[in-house]
Amino acid sequence: MPTLLKTHRTFDGLTQFWQHASSATQTPMKFSTFIPAGAAPKGCLIWLSGLTCTDENFISKAGAQQYLATHGWMVICPDTSPRGLQLPNEHDAYDFGSGAGFYLDAKTPGYADHYRMETYVVDELHQLIQTKFGVAGDRIAITGHSMGGHGALTLGLRHPTKFSSVSAFSPICNPTLAPWGIKAFTGYFGDSPEARAMWAAHDATALVQAGKRHPKAFLIDQGTADDFYPAQLLTQNLADACKAADQPATIQLCDGYDHSYYFIATFIESHIRFHVAAAT
Amino acid sequence: MPTLLKTHRTFDGLTQFWQHASSATQTPMKFSTFIPAGAAPKGCLIWLSGLTCTDENFISKAGAQQYLATHGWMVICPDTSPRGLQLPNEHDAYDFGSGAGFYLDAKTPGYADHYRMETYVVDELHQLIQTKFGVAGDRIAITGHSMGGHGALTLGLRHPTKFSSVSAFSPICNPTLAPWGIKAFTGYFGDSPEARAMWAAHDATALVQAGKRHPKAFLIDQGTADDFYPAQLLTQNLADACKAADQPATIQLCDGYDHSYYFIATFIESHIRFHVAAAT
Repeated sequence: MPTLLKTHRTFDGLTQFWQHASSATQTPMKFSTFIPAGAAPKGCLIWLSGLTCTDENFISKAGAQQYLATHGWMVICPDTSPRGLQLPNEHDAYDFGSGAGFYLDAKTPGYADHYRMETYVVDELHQLIQTKFGVAGDRIAITGHSMGGHGALTLGLRHPTKFSSVSAFSPICNPTLAPWGIKAFTGYFGDSPEARAMWAAHDATALVQAGKRHPKAFLIDQGTADDFYPAQLLTQNLADACKAADQPATIQLCDGYDHSYYFIATFIESHIRFHVAAAT
Repeated sequence: MPTLLKTHRTFDGLTQFWQHASSATQTPMKFSTFIPAGAAPKGCLIWLSGLTCTDENFISKAGAQQYLATHGWMVICPDTSPRGLQLPNEHDAYDFGSGAGFYLDAKTPGYADHYRMETYVVDELHQLIQTKFGVAGDRIAITGHSMGGHGALTLGLRHPTKFSSVSAFSPICNPTLAPWGIKAFTGYFGDSPEARAMWAAHDATALVQAGKRHPKAFLIDQGTADDFYPAQLLTQNLADACKAADQPATIQLCDGYDHSYYFIATFIESHIRFHVAAAT
């Protein structure tokens, strides 16, 4: 079971930091939570962070606790990769390896043994939310930012029964066509024809084009002053794919907002309301 | 005039980071602001941060922007000391020198030329709030955390006409009797009888005992699970002094809250409401 590292009372509930021995990654993993006061949480939002982030960014900067407290929901924020390893090229760049797990199960040598963030989130954390925190398995929603928005969308499409609803902030929507995604997929899957099939199976736009669906509409917010928009994010490609395939999606361009947590803080309340409503 | 370093749209307003050449400290100084959308701000809250902080802590972690936006108020958050100097012992400890200016005008060699944070806040920033941001001079309130709570209380008592209201989170209430304060005052004022008089003139409890007053009641929140409470903060000494001297003060013990920004985020809305009401 997880070890509690720190507790901070927040909006009458508890902001907490944890560490556990992950069966998925075979490493220690850290995560943070906010647990509202009172009985067991009515639902759980999984927050997936972006490149370079840890379990601390969202919980300290997004200002989500007050809204979660209002609705009686918890949030759980995993780290963005395994830590403490020394794999080839793992610590050389901000956009591959440590801090950049991309929420997939890697297949390349070394990485295949530990970089199993999809299994970690979809199986291990999903189970922990139920057993440790007492949340019903059909009231677990998923969201995230940038690389974590990619994670929320792809995990939601690949495992639609696991997540009651899916949203994203500034997600990487079509990574097989964008520099961050190409670099990560090459490193985690390789570049063979078989590897290329895995690329497509972890690309939200390609998944929708291939017929994958989530039963609930997506909610996506994207700032127009985001330095990574559109080149790394390719939001319109996902919008077009959803429209062509009848995957409902509310994709909103937010005038003047950038890629930062100031953007997330501004819109997190609306995402929490969306997930609470979808699970009711 | 200040140079704009970064802008992030937030709750329809602007979170901004600035740098200017300070006449008070004779160094470059950084500060952050949130400016609500619309006409000139209706008031300005000065936020003074605690030990080790910069202009970034409050603006990124307190979640204040939404409440400021609601009331049409701005906030300005100065750095906690001059930077870029090499004074004796300036960078040796977290609780003296850089990151630990204590919001006073130092008198010791080297520090006397630059560590003039009282003049910087009370004169230079106070003027800038009016000339650069268009806020009326009688609608400038002051608050802060820990060392910054000490700053808000002492500057409010020493310059009562400059601040429409005064509040504090986890303030150092009686620094002449607490380790942080004794170390800082020794370093910035010395230890002579004349220096000891300056110690008392920068101690909120001693100032109230000496007859200094602010026309409005103080609002102070203090967490009971704060690792620095009561030894470094000595909250009760200030409460006793205020009661004995008829200085109105609402001093609230917040059950289970600690010294962190999770505590501040929980109670910042009530402080903003307090300052808005006091200036109306």
